Amino acid sequence: MAIQFEVHAQEEEARCGLLTTRRGEIETPVFMPVGTAGSVKGIRFEELAAADLDARIILGNTYHLWLRPGIEVIKACGGLHNFIGWDRAMLTDSGGFQVWSLTEIRKVTEEGTEFRSHIDGSLKFLSPEISMEVQSVLGAEIAMSFDECPPGQIEHDAARQSMELTLRWAKRSKEAFHELQAGSLRTTGKMPALQQALFGIIQGGAHLDLRRESLERTAEIAFDGYALGGLSVGEEKPVMLDIIEDIAPRMPADRPRYLMGVGTPEDLIESVARGIDMFDCVLPTRNGRNGQAFTARGKLNIKNARFATDTRPLDEQCSCSVCIRHSRAFIRHLYLAGEMLASILLTHHNLAFFLDTMRRVRQAIRSGQFAKFRREFTEQLSSGLE
Amino acid sequence: MAIQFEVHAQEEEARCGLLTTRRGEIETPVFMPVGTAGSVKGIRFEELAAADLDARIILGNTYHLWLRPGIEVIKACGGLHNFIGWDRAMLTDSGGFQVWSLTEIRKVTEEGTEFRSHIDGSLKFLSPEISMEVQSVLGAEIAMSFDECPPGQIEHDAARQSMELTLRWAKRSKEAFHELQAGSLRTTGKMPALQQALFGIIQGGAHLDLRRESLERTAEIAFDGYALGGLSVGEEKPVMLDIIEDIAPRMPADRPRYLMGVGTPEDLIESVARGIDMFDCVLPTRNGRNGQAFTARGKLNIKNARFATDTRPLDEQCSCSVCIRHSRAFIRHLYLAGEMLASILLTHHNLAFFLDTMRRVRQAIRSGQFAKFRREFTEQLSSGLE
Repeated sequence: MAIQFEVHAQEEEARCGLLTTRRGEIETPVFMPVGTAGSVKGIRFEELAAADLDARIILGNTYHLWLRPGIEVIKACGGLHNFIGWDRAMLTDSGGFQVWSLTEIRKVTEEGTEFRSHIDGSLKFLSPEISMEVQSVLGAEIAMSFDECPPGQIEHDAARQSMELTLRWAKRSKEAFHELQAGSLRTTGKMPALQQALFGIIQGGAHLDLRRESLERTAEIAFDGYALGGLSVGEEKPVMLDIIEDIAPRMPADRPRYLMGVGTPEDLIESVARGIDMFDCVLPTRNGRNGQAFTARGKLNIKNARFATDTRPLDEQCSCSVCIRHSRAFIRHLYLAGEMLASILLTHHNLAFFLDTMRRVRQAIRSGQFAKFRREFTEQLSSGLE
Repeated sequence: MAIQFEVHAQEEEARCGLLTTRRGEIETPVFMPVGTAGSVKGIRFEELAAADLDARIILGNTYHLWLRPGIEVIKACGGLHNFIGWDRAMLTDSGGFQVWSLTEIRKVTEEGTEFRSHIDGSLKFLSPEISMEVQSVLGAEIAMSFDECPPGQIEHDAARQSMELTLRWAKRSKEAFHELQAGSLRTTGKMPALQQALFGIIQGGAHLDLRRESLERTAEIAFDGYALGGLSVGEEKPVMLDIIEDIAPRMPADRPRYLMGVGTPEDLIESVARGIDMFDCVLPTRNGRNGQAFTARGKLNIKNARFATDTRPLDEQCSCSVCIRHSRAFIRHLYLAGEMLASILLTHHNLAFFLDTMRRVRQAIRSGQFAKFRREFTEQLSSGLE
């Protein structure tokens, strides 16, 4: 097995586990910062790895890296870890979601997806086989199956068609993945089948029957882990939580359960409570660049005039390096002056908040206090800033 | 005395000294990173202070901070050090140069300069008294006298008029400065006259006779240190070096000699050879943001296609945290992808190069090897990248 996973503690559906990769151990539930184009925007890798954040795994986007700098460059530089200078674990997505969310799709066929690059408008084609080949060059510890990501409000019939396509693509993904690993074995004499894990993705829109069927048939293909895809894509929040609540506990208990692209601090806690182990989301980095800080008492918009001479840290309960050193007044000034440091500091704090929240979640589950933690955390989040 | 300064070693005109402030010791020759609006652009204060860079003093711009966030905000936040979260030494300029270089000047009168804010176009007025008041609130270890900065090619008559005005403003600056320090003494019972030093600025355009007269008459007013202003403002490089060569050795030997706004690595070495102790310049930070790295073998433009798969560090002789971890290929990719991390990494490396060069300069002077260092450094700089 390329990865190992053990659940060490459980409180109702909430699980605390250990995911072991060739590049280190990852305690779950875990939040994975998103390194879209080879960089978690606005932060240096040293800081991601230092004790203040201690991110154990980050996400790289296959779609972005495939278009730029391209696979030949990354191959010439020895794979994604070497290229970007990050020696801890990584997960790459399959490109399916980005193609859907960023590009003008020309045609979805049985073979794959034809679309226009968001960078230069050129015509591109992505398929399970191409995605696996790209992800094999990237060389992350965890690769994702190539899927179709339908919109959140998709009707039952269309959702079934899309789910069936995703299932056929999942089989092709797995076959291509194993051929690539075996081919690499023949070429290098090493055992790369041990090096990468492949996760399957459960689709089915907002239709529970389809979601259950997608889970069952994806599990039959047998992956190293399973992800819930196509959530937080326009459906109502209660719909998302209902799907997670129904599906997550049915996902194989001995494999990591990954909720893709989600979400707010509340979403993380509520999804952990429903049995999810892994998360990724651009919220802490993107919102940081837009002047928003996540705090224990909810969101803080640094542009607000009330912070002009506020010498308190972004979050009075936070002990990250930003909150120890800098005031709301200073960060507000930086933001209004267009200083890059505003984005840098807000990004760092937001990642600290997300990663620290997950540390507290794990601690709570281990000590059987998760229900209490969840209640208090949620109450405080909605209590508002002083 | 607000600061103490001792020269510990000298090789011909090049000096190695120690500048002691209430916020730490600064070995000279020293390069001061520029923190225009309360931030050295693209870098966190932790990194400036860490061993990799170990910047002992940074510069803050009175003009920028006065306009935004404004003095009331900085006063409410306990002065500039507290506001920005930097506890090492700082120097603030007087605003004279920024008014000249950034704004549409409406009128220069005996009283001061009327101009339009580069932020919102509003009418503003800056005078020696206002500059001293602002700098007193900012509270840097070293404040600068308010001067008029004429263009590099100014004619003799106009240069004399401007120099005479700067001299009258220098006297008013000193008077206002001492009144503010004494007033603060009366109010607080503390001895703030010990807290800030005031430097005088030598002007006179490219006219040596005026420069000498400006120096003599500025020294008569008696400042804690002396600066050469109005250089690197459009005049030819040999003209600048001739002025420095003539004037620097005549500047009071027991006080720091500060060359404002200069320059390239070559400029720093050549100016040290002529007797300068202190420098500031936006080159390492600004050029970093524009994709240019300074290296021991000259400038490197990271956009260049030849670096697409170049796995070497920016500077093969550099051991900064960027060069240890990241390749030219990766930083090029980040730059082309518009990732903020490109600016962050290039800024860090460039500051490391400037600060490390000054460390090596000091070491060379202390060991009587500066002439050799200067020759080898200059030869290598022009040898070109491999």
